[in-house]
Amino acid sequence: MPKYKINIEYDGTDFVGWQKQENGISIQSSLEDAIYKLTNEDVTIFGAGRTDAGVHAKNQVAHFEIKKNLSLDNIRDGLNQYLKKLSISILKSEIVDENFNARFSAKLRVYQYKIKNRRPPLTFEKNLYWGVFKKLNINDMKKAIKYFIGKHDFNAFRSIDCQSSSSLKTINDCNIEAENENIFINISARSFLHSQVRIIVGTLVEVGKGNIKPEEIKEIILRKDRSRAGPTAPAQGLYLIKVEY
Amino acid sequence: MPKYKINIEYDGTDFVGWQKQENGISIQSSLEDAIYKLTNEDVTIFGAGRTDAGVHAKNQVAHFEIKKNLSLDNIRDGLNQYLKKLSISILKSEIVDENFNARFSAKLRVYQYKIKNRRPPLTFEKNLYWGVFKKLNINDMKKAIKYFIGKHDFNAFRSIDCQSSSSLKTINDCNIEAENENIFINISARSFLHSQVRIIVGTLVEVGKGNIKPEEIKEIILRKDRSRAGPTAPAQGLYLIKVEY
Repeated sequence: MPKYKINIEYDGTDFVGWQKQENGISIQSSLEDAIYKLTNEDVTIFGAGRTDAGVHAKNQVAHFEIKKNLSLDNIRDGLNQYLKKLSISILKSEIVDENFNARFSAKLRVYQYKIKNRRPPLTFEKNLYWGVFKKLNINDMKKAIKYFIGKHDFNAFRSIDCQSSSSLKTINDCNIEAENENIFINISARSFLHSQVRIIVGTLVEVGKGNIKPEEIKEIILRKDRSRAGPTAPAQGLYLIKVEY
Repeated sequence: MPKYKINIEYDGTDFVGWQKQENGISIQSSLEDAIYKLTNEDVTIFGAGRTDAGVHAKNQVAHFEIKKNLSLDNIRDGLNQYLKKLSISILKSEIVDENFNARFSAKLRVYQYKIKNRRPPLTFEKNLYWGVFKKLNINDMKKAIKYFIGKHDFNAFRSIDCQSSSSLKTINDCNIEAENENIFINISARSFLHSQVRIIVGTLVEVGKGNIKPEEIKEIILRKDRSRAGPTAPAQGLYLIKVEY
């Protein structure tokens, strides 16, 4: 059976998240439905990152196996045909080795968090950015973000729903790009805890507002206490932008 | 009576356009409703550019007069409060001289047209870009666009609904920015004919597809025949981005 790898873009606004759930339409089930319509085969699709409700992807990666041998153009254009009423688009399709696993073979995941820092309410970016009204101190945020790089116990930066047995994680890189009212926070790691990026961003925004000093981040990490970190930033600003294998 | 100038951003997707109409919600009527809720005064608001249904603004300008003397922050934040369910946002408010007229005092209007040139369907930008699937030749488009600069009879580049008595217009500048799959076409003039920018863009896309040669633009302008120019580009890619006084 040929194994296909696909790169997917989606606006997560109207979905319950990547993963199949009973209470609404997921990206996963939408893709499985489209594959069924295209091939008449019932398959399970496996994604690199299980994005939450409202979270977006510029470049999610997934794999699936089918019995039919379809051309790569047919896979991409055929699935897009069945997805066209939804905000999901297949960017690329490839044949991969049978050992490839979109989730477990991933070496690096890159997330980007988008903030619009301005007083007027958002229009175009309402569901696509976090609108923060108070003027943020970017220099302090840039100082603070450095403390997250490296291997740490991120217990203070995971959701209470996180099911991971260990909270040790290694952040390979994180940085902030700021231009006019746009603030983009980029964070990359092999894997993340549940809500880790959003809690890091929520904490950085507290730093930007002056409520937490940049150097306090070190201690917040060491104390491992969720209540010391900032709030969880809203889902709509978060994008899975790259998965490396 | 104080006269206020406001700068406005809007996502035009769900509106019938700037101008009040009987068949739906306009930007103008939404703003007049918000002013009424804020001041209890019935006013008419005058805009610099009468954008069509589905056309957006990053920076529309309008003026209105009210009897009350409200602070500039009150005007901006108060109107935004009443507009918050709509995709309209007041960016700035100023007091202007009684001679100021948002429409007639404007010296330059700048429009930007956004194209995504890629095969996969659009997700985030569905209502915000024109998705063109066939790969466009940017160099040819850049050669072609130069023929539009200057004073010409643009009869071939106006809608049959255009009510302007003369089709003589002067394009001050136009250029193309292309990066990856994004193509932005910027066009500035004191004033435009109805659908002029969208017909210029539709014609440039024909050039990019190889259906019209760049040097043919000169003749299409000279012949003044609408049927020789390209189709009208869809509304959703067009933005009013600046008005200069």
